Formats: sequence, structure tokens, C-alpha cells
Amino acid sequence: MARESAEATRIMVAVNQSSIKGYPHASISSRTAFEWAVTKLVRSNVTGFRLLFVHAQVPDEDAFDDMDSIYASPEDFKNMKERDKIRGLHLLEYFVERSHQYGIPCEAWIRKGDPKEVICNEVKNVHPDLLVVGSRGLGPFQRVFVGTVSEFCVKHVECPVITIKRRPDEIPRDPIDD
Amino acid sequence: MARESAEATRIMVAVNQSSIKGYPHASISSRTAFEWAVTKLVRSNVTGFRLLFVHAQVPDEDAFDDMDSIYASPEDFKNMKERDKIRGLHLLEYFVERSHQYGIPCEAWIRKGDPKEVICNEVKNVHPDLLVVGSRGLGPFQRVFVGTVSEFCVKHVECPVITIKRRPDEIPRDPIDD
Repeated sequence: MARESAEATRIMVAVNQSSIKGYPHASISSRTAFEWAVTKLVRSNVTGFRLLFVHAQVPDEDAFDDMDSIYASPEDFKNMKERDKIRGLHLLEYFVERSHQYGIPCEAWIRKGDPKEVICNEVKNVHPDLLVVGSRGLGPFQRVFVGTVSEFCVKHVECPVITIKRRPDEIPRDPIDD
Repeated sequence: MARESAEATRIMVAVNQSSIKGYPHASISSRTAFEWAVTKLVRSNVTGFRLLFVHAQVPDEDAFDDMDSIYASPEDFKNMKERDKIRGLHLLEYFVERSHQYGIPCEAWIRKGDPKEVICNEVKNVHPDLLVVGSRGLGPFQRVFVGTVSEFCVKHVECPVITIKRRPDEIPRDPIDD
């Protein structure tokens, strides 16, 4: 007689691209966080949950890819922005595809901006029951230089937050990567 | 076709007594954390989860209850310790009872010591998939004086942690209470 609330539990999962492979590849920590939520929380109860994937696209981060491009008209810049957006969409496609394989209903969207602010804003607007964020599990020394989105979310986000660290065997040689 | 791992997801829930009403009453934040885990995560999938209740009994905290007692023999002290233990057991009884009402398998045990250390140690020994801790949701000013177990756990515990804050309508007049 466990309580089944009428509405599904809405889990927001913040996802980002791999810093090594770039778009459309998902980062190890995003994939780990997603698979953890599915395996440990959703389990076989696919109708009891709904996954909400949010990707914060950092406007400057991709700019270096366009170093060799020539911008002759405002139209060219528009094309660049379109290309960024498409890369982000391919990233989301991966997670939507995986969710469909599992049979879990989901939604996915992109917001431009600083990941910390984007995630906090989306939680404010969407009111998920839970936010799941991946973490590179950096030590205190590395964190000073890199800053961690997960720590910021735990402190500032208005709903419960779970931080999922990468598995030790999945950490790249430079743990700041990916 | 969501993955159902062979073993149930083991959720450790750290529970404590009400600071206002004392033993055997559970604190508002413990009850909130427990009910949240049931309603939002376990839902109807009662065989997919197992709840592990840990109560850290602080040795000095209850000593003032025994101010009027007379200790004439080592036996008297033993009785006092027994009484403490019984109080803790009644606290656990509440959560075990509730879990049985929901039909969720559970275990519960008491450890003496500082809650922060007890919880970290139990996570190390028992390896739950997830730790759920209640939080009074104190502001930064109050935290300086009170210290929060939940913050410590998020930083030091080896498994993912969810902190569940009390609902605003359940906060007592002095938020440090309960």
C-alpha cells in the first residue's frame, strides 16, 4: 500500500557535452548521472517517473570552433548560432533516445547561458521533484580553478539535489577533462 | 525495458528524535525525509527498494534527563544506558512501523556517537546506493552556531546524498528546534 501520487516523479537531469570529444558527445559525468537515475531510482517503474533533460549551452565555449570562419554579414553569425544549437540538439537526442529505449517518458530542452544560472532558473520555472547532476568528483585543489556546477546547485537550487560522481574507472587521465 | 538490477536499491535514511518533544518522537526533518523518499522514489515499486534506518544516539545529549537520578552502583549506570537505548528503539519502531504499512522491506539500527561520524561510518560499512538526510533548512547565520549534519554528509559521505528540507509550514517558531 505504498502511496502512489497521481503525478509522476519529475527528475531533472542536467546534461553537458564531453570536454574532450566535444558536441554531440555527452560527458562521462552526464551519462553516469543519467544511468544512475534510471538504474537506481526509476528501475522498472517507468510510468512513475518523467525525465527532464536540460542542457545549458555556454555561448563563448564554442566560439573557438569558428576561428577560421569568415563573417561577412549578419547572416553568417546567425548561421553560427544555428550550428551551435544543432550541436546541442544532437546532445539531447542521445538522452532522449536512451530514455525511449528504457520506455521512460521524457522532455529535453536547451537554454543559453552559464550552467549554474541556467539550472537554477529552470528548477525555479519547472519545479522538478529532484535534480540530478553529474560531478567530475574533483579534489579541493582542482575545484579552486575549475569551479563546480554541482556544488553550486546543492547550495542554491530550490529542490532536492543528487550529485552523482563518475566511477573511478571512468575518470580520464586529466580529471578536469570531460 | 528499463533495467531492473537484480538487487533492490538500498536507501539509508538517517533519523533523529525531536529536539522539542524528545524521544521517542521523530524530528520533523526525519519524518519529512522518510515520507519524501517513499512518495517520490519508492512509489508503488515496494519490492525494488529497501530502507535502512540509522539512528545516531548522542551519549551526552540525554544525560540531563538523568540529573535527578541517584547513581549508587555501576548497575545504575547500566540501567541508564539501557533506558537510552530503549528510547532510541522506540524512535526506530516508528519508522519500521511506517515502512511496514507501506509494504517496504526495511532494517533499522542504533549507533552511539556523533551523528556526522556515525552516518559516514555506516555508509562506509553498509554501502547503500543513496543516503537521505533531513535538514532544518537553516540560513547561513543560524548554521554557524548549530552546524548541520546534512552539509557534512554531502561533503564527506561516499555515496550519493539527498538532503530534504522541511516544508515551510512545518518549521517551528525557532527553526533550530526539532
